[in-house]
Amino acid sequence: MSIPDQSTQIQLVARPEGWPTHENFRTVVVDLPDLGPDEVRVVNDYVSVDPYMRGRMNDVKSYIAPFALDATMDGGAVGHVVASTSDTVPVGAVVSHNQGWRDVAQGPAARFRVVEEAPGLPRSALLGILGMTGLTAYVGLGEIARLSMGDTVFVSGAAGAVGTAVGQIARRKGAARVIGSAGSAEKVALLTERYGFDAAINYKDGPIREQLAEVVGEDGVDVYFDNVGGDHLEAALDVMNRFGRVAVCGAIAGYNDTDRTPGPDNLMNIVSRSLTLRGFTLGDHFSAQPAFEADMRRWVAEGRIVHDETVVEGIDHAVDAFLSMLEGGNTGKMVVKTS
Amino acid sequence: MSIPDQSTQIQLVARPEGWPTHENFRTVVVDLPDLGPDEVRVVNDYVSVDPYMRGRMNDVKSYIAPFALDATMDGGAVGHVVASTSDTVPVGAVVSHNQGWRDVAQGPAARFRVVEEAPGLPRSALLGILGMTGLTAYVGLGEIARLSMGDTVFVSGAAGAVGTAVGQIARRKGAARVIGSAGSAEKVALLTERYGFDAAINYKDGPIREQLAEVVGEDGVDVYFDNVGGDHLEAALDVMNRFGRVAVCGAIAGYNDTDRTPGPDNLMNIVSRSLTLRGFTLGDHFSAQPAFEADMRRWVAEGRIVHDETVVEGIDHAVDAFLSMLEGGNTGKMVVKTS
Repeated sequence: MSIPDQSTQIQLVARPEGWPTHENFRTVVVDLPDLGPDEVRVVNDYVSVDPYMRGRMNDVKSYIAPFALDATMDGGAVGHVVASTSDTVPVGAVVSHNQGWRDVAQGPAARFRVVEEAPGLPRSALLGILGMTGLTAYVGLGEIARLSMGDTVFVSGAAGAVGTAVGQIARRKGAARVIGSAGSAEKVALLTERYGFDAAINYKDGPIREQLAEVVGEDGVDVYFDNVGGDHLEAALDVMNRFGRVAVCGAIAGYNDTDRTPGPDNLMNIVSRSLTLRGFTLGDHFSAQPAFEADMRRWVAEGRIVHDETVVEGIDHAVDAFLSMLEGGNTGKMVVKTS
Repeated sequence: MSIPDQSTQIQLVARPEGWPTHENFRTVVVDLPDLGPDEVRVVNDYVSVDPYMRGRMNDVKSYIAPFALDATMDGGAVGHVVASTSDTVPVGAVVSHNQGWRDVAQGPAARFRVVEEAPGLPRSALLGILGMTGLTAYVGLGEIARLSMGDTVFVSGAAGAVGTAVGQIARRKGAARVIGSAGSAEKVALLTERYGFDAAINYKDGPIREQLAEVVGEDGVDVYFDNVGGDHLEAALDVMNRFGRVAVCGAIAGYNDTDRTPGPDNLMNIVSRSLTLRGFTLGDHFSAQPAFEADMRRWVAEGRIVHDETVVEGIDHAVDAFLSMLEGGNTGKMVVKTS
């Protein structure tokens, strides 16, 4: 197979107001320059589309710079090296890196991390349960929410990439009870039947506040892993136990809001129940990666981890995949297959 | 002076809906029984009225049981022992205890803590800057918000008992800049001229959100000590620096709400700025008392602490004092002089 000398890439051309559309993006084909010293060319096998990317499409000050207009976006990707002037990242190596939203990546070898695939899992799992997604769940439960054995855990967006990882890691780490919410009957069934959740709520069946209170009952919730924000955070605050911890990972409910949406009406519970709410960004927690990989690869080897993904084929459909993910069209990790 | 054998006490007779009124309370005079073994009778010199007491007037599950109806309320008090069958708490001792809302207290000696007055401060300071009020500020800044040298601190309700303590402790502990909000021009002037705040905002002059952003400028806020909640929390979330910490101590803005009030519209900043919001209740932090007392008594001895209070005379006016405090009628600690 010949070595590609072009890269098909997705660029942001206009910042979305509210829900993004195809008009916010364009596809370009660029000619790749010859490799310089210590560089590699990588055919991406899978690129990741993640909720946080919606935030980067806005021009607001944040922990991470917004996507530039008229430039190719970046994001998680895994691929294999097809050309190399590097001793440490040779041709044939499987690499994880941040040059997503394109089918071929190129740059200094230091920006590509050689990774080991896990027997029994597809390469795309390196973006999901074995990658940033799994690490996000692991860090949020551990360093942020200080999960303890015997805790009751609630996770919103539970059928998504991070959510399915949270539920399983919580169980492996000794949670007594794991409750999830999702947006369809199919997803809710998967949570209990496939992912080992003890209970699951379809938030479209009625107010999440009432449903959660009923499911939780007298036991209360010790750890809430918040992927959704808004009414889910409000519902959780109603049922948190004293000294409960909330890992605030995302607020997908509000990502596409054009108006400011009021927050929960029960923040007083933060005081009355001595709660801790803590937001986090994975970039500050890479030190947890060795412990995460040791745990997760062992669980995978033992057959104790369920890994699912929704695969969209072709870099030309990356925007479709992204939009579908924002609408909850995925179960497990949403990835784009690009080779 | 004869030893009193009756106690005038304030009871809760109806739970307030919204703002409390005199109709929610009654005054009773009870005959005190003879002392049993290891008991004391204490003439209260000062009793405390505090914002948290409003919460206890509601019949809701919380970290602390609600006040019972038709029973005498309790709360912080300092007094002197007038009769004792205890070896450890003798007649004449000055004691701090929790039998407030009455002019004479009686019970097992173990419930009364012998305390040392500080030269130059009135006995009532044992309820304020040297007591639970000061400790609340100390714990909130230290164990909860992890104040570090060089931090910029914002405190709401800054002219109140806890707020004036927060401002001064923050400065003593190395804060680079201390900003406060209060509800009158007089209070705001006191904050900068008397309590050493670098800047102060009268939230009645305009939206706190705009005023705070202007005062804070580019530096941002590292620690927000929240006594108010509502729009103040929202304003603070707008200006918090990355890794900022919010000590959620109270939400006096909402204590008398009968409707549920929506929360801040910018909770997303918890994620995007990696913020930590932590609620706390002093009862879980008494272990900090020795360190607090060592620091505070040293600062007082060095003349580096300003202590103010608003004194209402007579147990018969305890309810007036409480209502006035809820409306912000006090500068510094509100106490009722009962002897």
